[in-house]
Amino acid sequence: MDNLMRDKAEEQLKEITRVIMDDYQQGRDIDKMNVFDQPERDVVVDIVNKMLNILFPGYYRDKTYKFFNLENKISVLIEDVMYNLTDQIAIALEYDDELKGEATMGDACISVRSQMLAVDFFKRVPKIRHMVNTDLQATFDGDPAADNKEEIVLCYPGLLASTIYRIAHELYDLGVPIIPRMMTEYAHNLTGIDIHPGATIGEYFFMDHGTGIVVGSTSIIGEHVKIYQGVTIGALSTSAGHALHGMRRHPTIEDNVTIYSGASILGGETVIGEGSIIGGNVFLTQSVRPGTRVNTQNQEEVGAEDF
Amino acid sequence: MDNLMRDKAEEQLKEITRVIMDDYQQGRDIDKMNVFDQPERDVVVDIVNKMLNILFPGYYRDKTYKFFNLENKISVLIEDVMYNLTDQIAIALEYDDELKGEATMGDACISVRSQMLAVDFFKRVPKIRHMVNTDLQATFDGDPAADNKEEIVLCYPGLLASTIYRIAHELYDLGVPIIPRMMTEYAHNLTGIDIHPGATIGEYFFMDHGTGIVVGSTSIIGEHVKIYQGVTIGALSTSAGHALHGMRRHPTIEDNVTIYSGASILGGETVIGEGSIIGGNVFLTQSVRPGTRVNTQNQEEVGAEDF
Amino acid sequence: MDNLMRDKAEEQLKEITRVIMDDYQQGRDIDKMNVFDQPERDVVVDIVNKMLNILFPGYYRDKTYKFFNLENKISVLIEDVMYNLTDQIAIALEYDDELKGEATMGDACISVRSQMLAVDFFKRVPKIRHMVNTDLQATFDGDPAADNKEEIVLCYPGLLASTIYRIAHELYDLGVPIIPRMMTEYAHNLTGIDIHPGATIGEYFFMDHGTGIVVGSTSIIGEHVKIYQGVTIGALSTSAGHALHGMRRHPTIEDNVTIYSGASILGGETVIGEGSIIGGNVFLTQSVRPGTRVNTQNQEEVGAEDF
Repeated sequence: MDNLMRDKAEEQLKEITRVIMDDYQQGRDIDKMNVFDQPERDVVVDIVNKMLNILFPGYYRDKTYKFFNLENKISVLIEDVMYNLTDQIAIALEYDDELKGEATMGDACISVRSQMLAVDFFKRVPKIRHMVNTDLQATFDGDPAADNKEEIVLCYPGLLASTIYRIAHELYDLGVPIIPRMMTEYAHNLTGIDIHPGATIGEYFFMDHGTGIVVGSTSIIGEHVKIYQGVTIGALSTSAGHALHGMRRHPTIEDNVTIYSGASILGGETVIGEGSIIGGNVFLTQSVRPGTRVNTQNQEEVGAEDF
Repeated sequence: MDNLMRDKAEEQLKEITRVIMDDYQQGRDIDKMNVFDQPERDVVVDIVNKMLNILFPGYYRDKTYKFFNLENKISVLIEDVMYNLTDQIAIALEYDDELKGEATMGDACISVRSQMLAVDFFKRVPKIRHMVNTDLQATFDGDPAADNKEEIVLCYPGLLASTIYRIAHELYDLGVPIIPRMMTEYAHNLTGIDIHPGATIGEYFFMDHGTGIVVGSTSIIGEHVKIYQGVTIGALSTSAGHALHGMRRHPTIEDNVTIYSGASILGGETVIGEGSIIGGNVFLTQSVRPGTRVNTQNQEEVGAEDF
Repeated sequence: MDNLMRDKAEEQLKEITRVIMDDYQQGRDIDKMNVFDQPERDVVVDIVNKMLNILFPGYYRDKTYKFFNLENKISVLIEDVMYNLTDQIAIALEYDDELKGEATMGDACISVRSQMLAVDFFKRVPKIRHMVNTDLQATFDGDPAADNKEEIVLCYPGLLASTIYRIAHELYDLGVPIIPRMMTEYAHNLTGIDIHPGATIGEYFFMDHGTGIVVGSTSIIGEHVKIYQGVTIGALSTSAGHALHGMRRHPTIEDNVTIYSGASILGGETVIGEGSIIGGNVFLTQSVRPGTRVNTQNQEEVGAEDF
């Protein structure tokens, strides 16, 4: 009886495997068998975490980390990230070429190119740190609940997500494929904040709480902008798909704008004028003049004005 | 002195343990001491991750995984999932019987039943892969920011959540207790998207960004439906609790409907007619005719029409 | 050639390290080099998970855990948490003193103080368990989709987040710095629900689905309150920052209020009267009388009434 059951189970397993193997043969997208390498999520996450150490040398610390040997520590971290980032960029470049059906540059060429990109990225670290410092200041000014800036660096998901975005954005700007998106998706997973690495965001950016915030790939956001949880800076729905790739589909938010929780602002021609305040749960698909206060009652009128 | 402090600490510890042990004796729900086994979250998560490998054989890959031995690889994966899934289903069936105070079927019977359920689940893998492939296509068509379909499989939380839902839904449909809900709660934790495994969702389902999406257990969603972040397909509040268990409490969304960010659609008699577009932050508790455009200004009127 | 490349790479690495080390010398917040210890996130997370075991002795179980040795098991768990919590509180107290530039109490004094706080916290475990049991009941009554209470304890993010909040709130109330916020941020990361440990929340609190819920630090919430996903109980935007620290900036929600998905209620003088129902996506910055039904159409009028 037991033998019979075991035989039956083995037979079923064979049959199931056969059915699934057959199902792979239909040539759909889901059936693609890519045998080339992809960037590895775990390594990319490790790079992000080590970059946070480099950006905030006094905050994210392991126990052996003392001030007197900071230079050694940092140079070990940089060498580590440089090595792994170069490696992952090389994989991403080759992967991208293969996806596009282009001839790859060849190993030697890809190796040189990926090292140049990693070096160029590190040259931008002071710029990234400058931006992150302004975001930290904006968060402290904007949230009376913060006991001190250390609490913000250690606990605030908004600053964590904007910092990872600022790292990813520089890689995106240098033309590194897929890795920037993997980084911001890691931030999305941690914080519920989804900022596309292609978005442009000015200094002193403050996101409070942050869960549910979406900032699309062609958004342009000015300086001193405050965004609360659940805010979308997004695109109008389309079924044109890849035909619109790279076109401007997301709004411009000018300097000193505050957007309360749950507001959605959509469309590539939508401009929110400087100093405007957008109330909670407003749904805007048209521009508003500088200094406008929009709420769910007046959103139709103010949104309909010429700009 | 040190001895004194240590003695004091031990005494306090004893006293605290005694107080907490006493607190367990009140017979409230929180005081229940279930000694029977529950399905294990870690094993269920491992099953989900291996199923993703089986569904997307060319995408989720470990390094040793090459095309020429795909059949071996997949049959090892299937055997692994089959074994663990059968095991967890057996625990869940017994657990469910014990919770209901029913006599359990007995070990031999539960063992046969759980193996049949696991086999029936695997027979549905081609159906699941068909649905997932349509979701992938809908995501590519709907999001111009996607560089290629590989990026969607690797990075998009919407596709990840809908894929895990489609796995869980088949188990739910086969009558497997609690495990489907553990799976979708894992997806919720990863992506912020909360789809009950009991919901019915048609082909070409596209969720963009996705954080905050809620789809309730008795929802019925047609084909080619697009849902943005923060959308609720939910129930009206009740305090009737378990008395309403299994009754229709969530809306019907017909084919080709688009629902923008933050909209909430509630109630078991609410039907959103084919091709309708629901604007951001709309709150609807009544049906709308096919082809309706609803925004926060006209939601009262259109929602009040007879249907 | 290879040597040349290696030499070049080493040179670049040195140059990059020098640039970043220079960048640390600017005296900005981001350049601070704190050499004192911070509470450790991993230990705090471990404390939370073990507290969940203590609060729900019959639910969260490892395999070796049987009813007959429950007292042993629990006293081992309590001793473990007591030891680590005392340790982390000591670090947090010292850290807080150093951040404020105050002389620290001295090691002996901090050690006694942190142990007293840990003991005081454990004395409140029966109170925490009482509150959690009411939340479990409210969740069962409010969600017909729940098969049984076990499913709620095992799978429901709302109960998980409120339980972690209730742990963190007692530590906050005892004056423990930073650790409570690390705990609720862990819950935020797991569930998308962001409740500040300073908030006051009554019995029978029910959050359904929960992703995107925000409850600010000075909020006061009564008994039998139901809150759906995406709801904000928040503050009005400010740039006054720390000057407002500790002042009342968040609303009062009276007993038996239901707040549907996506509603935002803001401001320290806003009171939502007993038994009110706030519709989805409402944005309220003024008080409403007891028993009011507010939706996005009437929110202006009802919000403008004197209270």
